[in-house]
Parts: sequence; structure tokens; C-alpha cells
Amino acid sequence: MPDYSAPTKDMAYVLHDVLKVQDLPTPGYDDLDRDFTSAVLDEAAKITGEVLAPLNVVGDTQGCTLENGVVRTPDGFKDAFDQVKEGGWTGLDMPEEYGGQNLPYVMGLALTEMLSSANQAFAMYQGLTHGAAAAILAHGTDAQKSTYLPDMINCNWTGTMNLTEPHCGTDLGLMRTRAEPQGDGSYKLSGQKIFISSGEHDMADNIIHLVLAKIPGGPDGIKGVSLFIVPKFLVGDDGSLGARNGVACGSIEEKMGIHANSTCVMNYDDATGWLLGTEHKGMQAMFTMMNEARIGVGIQGLAQAEVAYQNALTYARERLQGRAVTGDENPDGPADPLIVHPDIRRSLMDQKSFVEGARAFVLWGATLIDQAHRGKDAEALGMISLLTPVIKGFLTDQGYDMTVLAQQIYGGHGYIEEHGMSQFTRDARIAMIYEGANGVQALDLVGRKLAQDGGKHVMAFFEMVKSFIKDNADIDGMEPLLTPLKQASKDLQNAGMFFMAEGMKNPNAALSGSYDFMHMMGHVCLGLMWARMGRASLDALANGTTDPDFHQTKLATARYYMARRLPATTMHLARIQSGADPVMDLAADQF
Amino acid sequence: MPDYSAPTKDMAYVLHDVLKVQDLPTPGYDDLDRDFTSAVLDEAAKITGEVLAPLNVVGDTQGCTLENGVVRTPDGFKDAFDQVKEGGWTGLDMPEEYGGQNLPYVMGLALTEMLSSANQAFAMYQGLTHGAAAAILAHGTDAQKSTYLPDMINCNWTGTMNLTEPHCGTDLGLMRTRAEPQGDGSYKLSGQKIFISSGEHDMADNIIHLVLAKIPGGPDGIKGVSLFIVPKFLVGDDGSLGARNGVACGSIEEKMGIHANSTCVMNYDDATGWLLGTEHKGMQAMFTMMNEARIGVGIQGLAQAEVAYQNALTYARERLQGRAVTGDENPDGPADPLIVHPDIRRSLMDQKSFVEGARAFVLWGATLIDQAHRGKDAEALGMISLLTPVIKGFLTDQGYDMTVLAQQIYGGHGYIEEHGMSQFTRDARIAMIYEGANGVQALDLVGRKLAQDGGKHVMAFFEMVKSFIKDNADIDGMEPLLTPLKQASKDLQNAGMFFMAEGMKNPNAALSGSYDFMHMMGHVCLGLMWARMGRASLDALANGTTDPDFHQTKLATARYYMARRLPATTMHLARIQSGADPVMDLAADQF
Repeated sequence: MPDYSAPTKDMAYVLHDVLKVQDLPTPGYDDLDRDFTSAVLDEAAKITGEVLAPLNVVGDTQGCTLENGVVRTPDGFKDAFDQVKEGGWTGLDMPEEYGGQNLPYVMGLALTEMLSSANQAFAMYQGLTHGAAAAILAHGTDAQKSTYLPDMINCNWTGTMNLTEPHCGTDLGLMRTRAEPQGDGSYKLSGQKIFISSGEHDMADNIIHLVLAKIPGGPDGIKGVSLFIVPKFLVGDDGSLGARNGVACGSIEEKMGIHANSTCVMNYDDATGWLLGTEHKGMQAMFTMMNEARIGVGIQGLAQAEVAYQNALTYARERLQGRAVTGDENPDGPADPLIVHPDIRRSLMDQKSFVEGARAFVLWGATLIDQAHRGKDAEALGMISLLTPVIKGFLTDQGYDMTVLAQQIYGGHGYIEEHGMSQFTRDARIAMIYEGANGVQALDLVGRKLAQDGGKHVMAFFEMVKSFIKDNADIDGMEPLLTPLKQASKDLQNAGMFFMAEGMKNPNAALSGSYDFMHMMGHVCLGLMWARMGRASLDALANGTTDPDFHQTKLATARYYMARRLPATTMHLARIQSGADPVMDLAADQF
Repeated sequence: MPDYSAPTKDMAYVLHDVLKVQDLPTPGYDDLDRDFTSAVLDEAAKITGEVLAPLNVVGDTQGCTLENGVVRTPDGFKDAFDQVKEGGWTGLDMPEEYGGQNLPYVMGLALTEMLSSANQAFAMYQGLTHGAAAAILAHGTDAQKSTYLPDMINCNWTGTMNLTEPHCGTDLGLMRTRAEPQGDGSYKLSGQKIFISSGEHDMADNIIHLVLAKIPGGPDGIKGVSLFIVPKFLVGDDGSLGARNGVACGSIEEKMGIHANSTCVMNYDDATGWLLGTEHKGMQAMFTMMNEARIGVGIQGLAQAEVAYQNALTYARERLQGRAVTGDENPDGPADPLIVHPDIRRSLMDQKSFVEGARAFVLWGATLIDQAHRGKDAEALGMISLLTPVIKGFLTDQGYDMTVLAQQIYGGHGYIEEHGMSQFTRDARIAMIYEGANGVQALDLVGRKLAQDGGKHVMAFFEMVKSFIKDNADIDGMEPLLTPLKQASKDLQNAGMFFMAEGMKNPNAALSGSYDFMHMMGHVCLGLMWARMGRASLDALANGTTDPDFHQTKLATARYYMARRLPATTMHLARIQSGADPVMDLAADQF
């Protein structure tokens, strides 16, 4: 069975040595001293490593079952959920007013990584509740907040997002679920929603569904979509649970992975619901939830890569097979460990440089969110809005690839289920799809975010990279990091210029390269983070750190990323610059 | 449920328009006229599309079961196996002397693609038998051939390869299975083998295990390994089945995919076996089987990509979602089909250009094998020996990636098992591992094949690419294909030169880049095949073909490959040229 040990040391390094959170002006960040964050991270490491990780394979093997409308989660899940609730983990970054602990989002996101690594299917029950609560917090009335939030924030009640219908996923304007106003402020919802994660299960007293539906007579398409709160059990004014609502799970899906999360077909049959936010502005409210969810999903890519890497590394150190080409390294044993072989190292270094770079990237992103929300900083908001599709698309694509690399190190032992490596790839696969398939993320990035506010945010991004390079040009040891970063950033700018020049004439010229652009930008972001980590570790070494080995390792890993991963940008640029013709030449019936 | 329709038209195009098999000097190729090959391909298409493909999901869902030592295959498998046997498909390219049809290997390989696309887990029962029979054909005594081959070639008996043990896979020198000589020409084998595909099942009267074991007192390590024939039931001189031998299936593995193929732990307990080939030269004999098997596994990558692509294409044409950015293309419908979107096209074109290029590549490889074996051509043998690790490693890596792309087009519907898209990725995953994990293929290519016979074969390869470019430089329409091919080939040569210059000083400098080199070379091979297809289609158009649309489509796809896929070589070259340091810098305990 695989193991998981939360990378708390690396998280502390990113928070304090690299991002220097305590020096940031964000309200609440002055409390984030090393002792405090370590205490939180260490406790989170305990529950994720000791309670949730051991249930990961159990969850995969047993899956969820549906009988007479009741979904049963795997053995041990309910107990574990109770422990997570009791620890106060579910409301870590939620307002104290509703029972949360009011920590910054950056701490919540560090927890999210651990939860996902330990047990992604389990983490989703809490994760979706968190997203639904955030939407109610942002768009609900005071009455709605006080009715729903306390029990959602402590996860006595869980939440869901209901968007997809059988005939529409990305194109939600086609949806058919109707919400008829009842004249008393309530609506009656009817329709079918599919792929509803945690739609029905046995770990909560109530389930609060957030449901997109159309109010008859409203505008056509996506502009006529509204968002509703539809509880499984109606809630009285005193918070007591009343009658069962007209919503039920029709079936659960057989899936490639995340077997322990129930993916439900939800049937709404005159279910009572209440408008959340404004009529016909449902997509806006849903996006509050979705933006946060997209970052949470991006983390899942990193999280599965991290746990897969941890186990692959252990295996590479222990499995004896073959001899080092430069001479035996384990002369007393029958063979050398796998880790002596250059191609195994290549794979491990790809994984290591990805997970550590990705962690710095998302935690940086989280500080932008805190600065945007707590600091009311419009520039931070613009930047994270630009980066969100990159975090989601790049980290889940690459994270998946890394789980495949980790699995490969086990050879045939990675293909059988016994060692749990297959589960990491199967679970990681969904992250490329849900919360907007990665092609949609690329479209969002290139078709919307690049031009947002007159291109201000992407220009700020380039400026930031440029300034960093300039400010660090004279630091000894930075050159091997800055030169490749400069080249990659130039490639990315050239791609952006190509889009501007050609996309005006033919939008397909930009959209044909959107996926490549998303990956290029992801590489530049990780390159920037590695350059920042390189600088932080050079400083630590210069200041006589007590842990020079840790920082030397960081510098070597930074050099690896620059030398072996960043050159991908030249390939992406060449693809982009080939324009629309190769992609669009064929008529649909010529394929 | 997914569909499969064999790409017979494309196969005929490659055989006759591109490779022009009938013009080749290989013995037996003069019989391969279009009518004949079409008749064979069409019949093969029927049985694979109508009989095997419908059982693919059944096989995945039911899997194999082991009860009291008996492995039961999924419903319908035995009937289907009987139909395949009755059709004479199992011995298509085997000698007539033993009941085969004596067709060239290239025809057998076209069949292999279809079998794998239709039902990979099923195809393995026949595929491994074919490989085992080929080893007996090459290394067996006359008596062994007449005892085993007829019943293996008609698949009344099936075959297996027994290499791996719990503690050793790649490093077979560590193996512990012993073979004690009995003084009467027989041996008693004892030990445990794992991951034995088709090791036990209910579709054959007998199972002929080829088993690697050590004869006590022989040389240490891999040089003391011999190969044995160990039948499940002992075979009398008259071919009758006698006593059950001391070999049994201890358990079957739970795996990520190929559920319908039984992956067995085989326990040998004083099992009677006979030496195949020479004492202590077992690896040589096994390699006969393995080289063929590696090409067969390379095909599996292509085959899963092909069937996944076919279904993704249908879905992209039928699923209505969103509108084309350049204006509605289905104005009377609620939305446009997915295929209008540039990013969906990018994905489809990646898949299309891969599967068609890969098909040309492996069929070309098959003609080299025929020329080597039937034509006793040492140069062809050298070339296919060079290309074998590329076919295995590149086609299975890329094939897997393509199944992931195909699955992605389905969005959430690709993640649930209902549409069968998840199975294609889960089944394709094993091909990157078995018959030598792809890292081992890269090592074989760079560590052995490049330098084989003084580097003669790789030089012949470069010369072939160069000549093709030179010979076609003046043909109208070839320039957009030749310029990128020339660049990519130059990148590959530069990588080879880097290995020569640096690898002498430090072997890790070459081995750190082996994986990148394998992929680079794969791209150059597919680029060459696309250039050859481009030329063939330009000729067809110049000669007034009755199917201009087919050839225009080929040309557009060729341009796509050159513009969007070949630039990967620049990235691989940059990685390779960064040398050993980034990969090897860290000590094992620094990770």
C-alpha cells in the first residue's frame, strides 16, 4: 500500500523563505509566523497521513454503492469525516462568524493539497462543500447565510454544484432544468443533472445543492440561467431539518477513478429551491464557486503527482535492478537500486521539479487571492484571474503526466493495483476534465483573460518576470536560472504578439494555439517560481543556513527545471506560429 | 459502446501507394497485389469489427476469474477464439509446413493492428502464442517443431513467455528459477514466475510455457540463463496429451486494464521441461520472441490510439456544444458540433497524424523484417534492429497520450466507463511497460543500437532520410514537408554527435538523454513516413486519381505533422545537450 507524508518542510519553505508571507501587506498575514504555520501544517499532516491516506486504496476498491436511493461510502469514511470535522479543518479559512477559523486562503490551500494527496475522493466531499459555502457567502442574503453556513462550514451538511445535464456540459446555455416561481419567494425545480460529485452519500445530515436552472420567460441561453439553493431536507427557520425535498439520486456512475466519491445523476422533481443572488445572473454567482474550484482542481494535479512521486522515489531507492553504468554503487548487494540509472533520475527529477515548482506557484496564487479579497487589491485580482486557467489546465495536465511517470518507475508492479500507483493516475485523470475541461481553460486564457482590462494583467505578468530578472542579474549563481527564464518569457511574449497580429484577422489563428499557450505560460510560471526559489536558497546559503543540503538541493532542482523543462516553450511557440491553417485545413467530413 | 471499423483503406494505401510492396524484391511480395491484400484485410476487418470489438467492454467489465486453479475468460471469448481459429487467422504468416498460410509478416502485422484495436486483451492470447511459436521455429529441434508447432499455429494450444520473477524484471540475471537436468534430456523446473500473460485460461487444450531458468552449476547472472519448453499437459510422441505437468496458476492480478487477459503468478514445482536452443543461451532464444513481441507491442500503442480516435471523431461530429467563433456552422441546431472548435481539431489532428504516420512506420518496419528474414538481407536486419526500440517505445508512449486526448474530447463522458473511452487508456497503459519498459527501450537504442556494427545502421538511416530529401527536392508541393524534416533530422544528428563527443567521457551524458533521443527519432521516422505519404499522394493527384479528396487529406495531414508535431525535436535536442549534470547532480538521499 502506498504511503503519504505531507511535505510540510517544503510548504514552510515556500511560505516563509520564498513568498515571505509575513512581509506581505495582506490583512491577517502578520499572524503567519513560522511557529504558527508549522503547528497548523504539522497537525494537518497528521490527520491526512494517518487517517485519510490509509483509506485511499480502501475507497478505490470498495467504491460507493447505491441501494434504495441511499449511497453508502466505503468503510471508514464516515469515521474519518467525523475526525476531520472535529479537528475544525473544514472551516479553516472561513469566517469566524459562521464557525470558521478565519485563516488566510493560503493556509486553506496548503491543507487542500494534503487532503487531495492523501485521498482525493474523500477530499471532494469537503472541497465541494467549501465551494458551495463560498458562493453562499458571496451571494446569499443574511438569512441564507445564517441558515446554511454554520452547518456547511462544520460539514454537518455538505454541498454540491449542479451544472451539467446529459446534453450539455461546457455549453450551459442549452440547459433544460426549469425553476417555476411559486409567488412566495420559492421556486419549484424540475430536471436532471448529471456528474454531481458527492450528490448523495451517508456522511452528512443534509446536502445543500446549488443548482443552475432557467426561470421560464427569462432570456435565452446562458443569460437566462439562475442559481438556486436546493436542500435535500428542507430547513426550518430555527435550523431544524424538515421534509425531504423533491430531489433524489437516480444512479451513480462507474468511473475510471475517484471511486469513493459518489458521482450522481440527480433528479429534481418539483424540488423546492431559493434563488441565490440575482435572477438570470446565475453564471456570475456560479463563477465565484468555480474560480475557487478551479484552483482547488489545479492543486489536485499537483497533489496526485506529489503522492505518486513520494512512492516512486521510495521504490527507486529500494528496488535493486541492474548496475550503474559508471560502476557498482551497491557492491555488496545483488544489484544497484533503480535510482542509480540516469533515465530513472530523469523521471524522478521531472516529477520533483514539477511538484515543488507547482506548489510554489499555487501558494503564490493563493497569496494573490488573499490580497485580492482581504486586501481589496484589484491588481492582485486581475493577476489571479489571468493565472487561474493556467493553474487549472497546466497543473492538472502535467500532474497527470507525472503520475504516469511515477507509475512507470514500478514497471509491471505499477500496472497492477496492489501497489496503488494505478489509482493515482486514474484519480488524477478527472482533474483535467471537471470544472471546465482543460481545452476550455485554454480558451478562457487566450480568448478572454489575455485581453481582459485591455491586456493589463498579462502585461503586468511580463513586467514582473522582467523586473525579477533585472533585479537579480548581479546575484552570483542566478545566471543559469535567469538566462533560460528570459528566453522562455520571450517565447511567451512572441506567442502573445502572434495572437495579437493574426488573431485580429482570424480568431482561429489564436485559438489553434491556445492549448500550447496555456502550457507555455505554465512553464514560464514554474520557471519564475524556480528562479525565486533559487534566489531564496542562495540567500539562505549566504546567510549561513543550518540546512545547506536542503538549499543546495533546491538549486540543483531549479537548474534541472531550467535546463530540461523550460525548453518546451520553443516547441510550443513553433506550433503556435504555424497558425490556423494546419489545424483548420480539413473539412469535418475529410477527417 | 464504442465502435471499431478497421482502417483497411489506409492500410491498402500504405502497402501499395507508399511502400509499393509488390515492387520490392522480397520473396513472396510479388503475390501481394491489391485484390489479394484487400480480400485479406476485408475479411480481417469483418471478424475484428463484428466479433471481437463487441466483446471488448464485456471483457473489461467481467475480467478473468480464478477458481480452483481454473481461469475463466469472459463470456463469449471462447466462441470468438474458435471463430478466429476457424478463419485461419492464427497462422497467417506462419509456414505452411506447420499449418500456417505463409503470408509475409507485413500482412500478419496489419492483422495484429486490427486485433489489438478491436480487443487488446483478447488479441494477447493469440499474440503470445505466435511469439512462442516463432521462438520454437527459430530455435527448436525438428522433433520439437513437429510436436508443438501445428497445435500452436492453429491455437488449439496457446503459448506464454515466462521471464519475470517477483524480485526481477529488467534484470533477469537475478532470477532464481532452477532447472535440474534429469539425465534423460529433460529437466525439472522449480520457481515462481509473475506477470505471465495468458498463463492459464479456458480457451486452449494445452498451454506451452517458454520459461527462463538457471541450470545449477552454470555461469552466474544473465549468462547462465537457459530457455525451456514446459507444457501444461505433457505431450506424447504421437501428439496426444498426457499427464498434467507440475505447473499451476497461483493467482491472477488485479490490473489497471486488459482485464480480460489473465495475468498469472505461475508456480513451477518440479515441472518437466525441455531445453529450447542451447544451454545458457536462453536470452538469445528469448530475444527472437522478444524482438517480434516488441514490434507487436508498438502496434498496440497505435491500435488503441486508432480505435480511440475513431470514437472521438464520431463524438466530435455528433455532440453539439458551443458555436464556432467564425460564425454558426449548424444554424438550425441548438449548437455547433464540437469539431468546429480549433482546440478540438488540434486534438483530432494530433491523433489522426499520429495513427496514420505510425501505421506507415510499422508497416515499413514489417517490410524490413520480411526482407531480413525472407530476403536474408543483413542491412534490412540491421535497420529493423535499430528501429525496434523506437517502434516499441515511441509508439506506445505516443499511442497512450493519444488515447488520453481522445478521452478528453468526451469531457466527463470520457471519464465514466459507459462510453468505453477510459478502457482504451487503461489498456494502452500496459504497452509502455511490458516487453521491456520504455526506459529500457531507450537504453537499448542509445546504449546498444546506435553503436551496433560500428554505427552503420544509424548512418544508413540518416543517409536514407537525406537521399529522400534530395530526390524529392524538385517535386512541386514537397517543400513544406521536406524543410521541417531536414531540420528535425539535423536535430537528431546533432544529438547523436553530442552522445559521441560526451558519452565517451561520461556514459551518463548519453544515457541522460536516451529517452529524449528515442522520441526525437520517433518523430523523425514519422516525419519521413509523412514525407513519403506526401509524395505518394502528390503522385496520385498528378496521375488523376479517382479519389482526390483522400489524397488532399493526406497532404493536409502531412503538413500538420510537420508544422505541429516535428518541432518537438528542438525541445528534445535542448534537453539532451544539457548533458548529465542536471540529471545526475543530486545524491540519492538528496531527493
